[in-house]
Amino acid sequence: MATAGKVIHCKAAVSWGKDEPLVIEDISVDPPKNNEVRIRMVATSFCHSDLHGMQGLRITGMHEAEFPTVFGHEGAGVVESVGPDVKTLRPGDSVIPLFNAQCGECPLCGLDGTNFCLYAKDTRARGLMSDGTSRLSCKGKRLSTFLGCATFSQYFVIEEPCVAKVNPKADLTRVGVAGCCIPTGVGAVREVARVSPGSTCAVWGLGAVGLSVVLGCKLAGAANIIGVDISPDKAELAKKFGCTEFIDPTKLNEPIQKVLQERFPMQGCDFTFESIGNVHTMKAAYESVRPAGGVCTVLGVSGDPDKFIQVHPLDVLAGKQLKGCYFGGLRFRLDLPQLVEEIVEGKIDCNLFITDTIRHDQINWAIDQMKAGKGIRYTLLY
Amino acid sequence: MATAGKVIHCKAAVSWGKDEPLVIEDISVDPPKNNEVRIRMVATSFCHSDLHGMQGLRITGMHEAEFPTVFGHEGAGVVESVGPDVKTLRPGDSVIPLFNAQCGECPLCGLDGTNFCLYAKDTRARGLMSDGTSRLSCKGKRLSTFLGCATFSQYFVIEEPCVAKVNPKADLTRVGVAGCCIPTGVGAVREVARVSPGSTCAVWGLGAVGLSVVLGCKLAGAANIIGVDISPDKAELAKKFGCTEFIDPTKLNEPIQKVLQERFPMQGCDFTFESIGNVHTMKAAYESVRPAGGVCTVLGVSGDPDKFIQVHPLDVLAGKQLKGCYFGGLRFRLDLPQLVEEIVEGKIDCNLFITDTIRHDQINWAIDQMKAGKGIRYTLLY
Repeated sequence: MATAGKVIHCKAAVSWGKDEPLVIEDISVDPPKNNEVRIRMVATSFCHSDLHGMQGLRITGMHEAEFPTVFGHEGAGVVESVGPDVKTLRPGDSVIPLFNAQCGECPLCGLDGTNFCLYAKDTRARGLMSDGTSRLSCKGKRLSTFLGCATFSQYFVIEEPCVAKVNPKADLTRVGVAGCCIPTGVGAVREVARVSPGSTCAVWGLGAVGLSVVLGCKLAGAANIIGVDISPDKAELAKKFGCTEFIDPTKLNEPIQKVLQERFPMQGCDFTFESIGNVHTMKAAYESVRPAGGVCTVLGVSGDPDKFIQVHPLDVLAGKQLKGCYFGGLRFRLDLPQLVEEIVEGKIDCNLFITDTIRHDQINWAIDQMKAGKGIRYTLLY
Repeated sequence: MATAGKVIHCKAAVSWGKDEPLVIEDISVDPPKNNEVRIRMVATSFCHSDLHGMQGLRITGMHEAEFPTVFGHEGAGVVESVGPDVKTLRPGDSVIPLFNAQCGECPLCGLDGTNFCLYAKDTRARGLMSDGTSRLSCKGKRLSTFLGCATFSQYFVIEEPCVAKVNPKADLTRVGVAGCCIPTGVGAVREVARVSPGSTCAVWGLGAVGLSVVLGCKLAGAANIIGVDISPDKAELAKKFGCTEFIDPTKLNEPIQKVLQERFPMQGCDFTFESIGNVHTMKAAYESVRPAGGVCTVLGVSGDPDKFIQVHPLDVLAGKQLKGCYFGGLRFRLDLPQLVEEIVEGKIDCNLFITDTIRHDQINWAIDQMKAGKGIRYTLLY
């Protein structure tokens, strides 16, 4: 492409400081270096983890925002150009950038049962490239990224092990939700909890991730899917995604775990999921699984170092299991393209998650909607 | 046998009240009724759970001692007589009585991945037969049992689903330790944690159960087995059972979890086990496993309703798993006889666990040894 090897000037929504509104700026994006790829984003959406980052919270246990920075980690685009030594990607490839890596070479990539990868872990945590620098700048200042991603910029540079190449038939204006919320929920159901047909599941928190869990449970053939949320607006959404029942725990006379333990013959649900990020709802979800093999899977992020889940040892002895994962336990480069195949084949419908499509420069409005708990995902088009 | 159908008068070590020394009494043992079996014990040993019961603690989450009672749940004997409808056991069979059941018919027996059974759960928790009565009495008073077992009596009656028939070649004066401590440890390694060859394991608490875990890890081919105990006397025992290293955490300048996280390339152990029953050591063991699939298995019993394990949500998200089990997750009637085969074949040596063999009427001395943390198991011969 004509831009290859040159600095690109484009629009980006920049976070200049903690809790400040994003500012649409003209930024400079340097060409990719060794093992790097420059991506042109087609669309991005906005996730609560971006919001936590903007609020200066230490999110996901690994990232601490270094302002100024560009957030955004859920989107889809096209490879604009590649640096030397890039082997698996070419200009024009349809891609989803990833907030973690799958290098295939580190000790963790060699293990079964995990999607963690040690590739460039420490620099990525700071939003920088492996060499400790950045390819993004604005008004003479270096811009960091969100764990290597900066999908709120039309262009950015990312390392090869952090990019999933997907089916070119995928609609890049819609498939970006496969960059975070869909795999996080559907993956957790399949890879971590391993929901079985006919089982009873309950899901705390019906945001995009929780609804993706509901969808995953439905696809796995669960017989009962209970959505748990304190917002009555979610009752209808819950049904739309596959919930067989909706519970607002504030409307109950007893703690929800007691209600669920007494209701099912096995003394609880087979599978529960927490996608809020609150240690109290994590406790409720854990205690709501049945003894003897019930599995509680935590997806919600709670990064406060002083807040612990209170787990009773007799529940542990009784065989209630506590698990957790990022990105649904899916291996980033290997499993995500498979999930996109299901989207292309119409088995998973991205539109379910997209409340509305808006312009990139309307991002602050989308953030306000998110803060007010309105909608699931707003997709911003470049 | 000449005693079949008749009341048997024999010796038993009776607990008349909380915290009182046991009293060797002449007790009456009624004949077995429907689905019941009367066992003549050859030997029994003494487990910390018996001690907890004597102290009036609500142990194992299910049992609350109703005094007067006869404790003891780790021993071996011979079937003296059987009640009507007993199908799988005959007089003369070598057996190990069990503190849980495997009925093969309840919903939990139908599940994979658990050894829980709902058979007569509530009456057994009270130390009574399914019909709410007892077959044991002394001085006109009914005697309850410990979860259906009363191995501190020479004879007692137990229900058929709670008896494992074992190889008649097994030495009944030694194999009783297969009734609790060996399966609890070895089973947890195999069935719950699933320790893999070459892995790094750490075991908190080197009592009989912890040492059984160590033995299990050794048999599973673990490369590093770290024994953790605050008693320096355990260092030598640890080595004898297979530990490659012994750590007294009170001798460290930093918390043990920090030391273990920093020492191994995967940021922790592959497998940890807690066999003390203390929520603080459970926390240390949990935090000492590596992210991305490390498994902490809790075996120690902590029944205080107000004491919780403090589990950090970011550790859960990072893929540290928390599991637990009773009896090593082994199915009582199906898996225990297999374990006894390994004992008969010499693959597992009961003698490792037996510090000394003494007379039944020396039981209070054995209890004092136990309280003082001396020895592993004392076997009492009838």
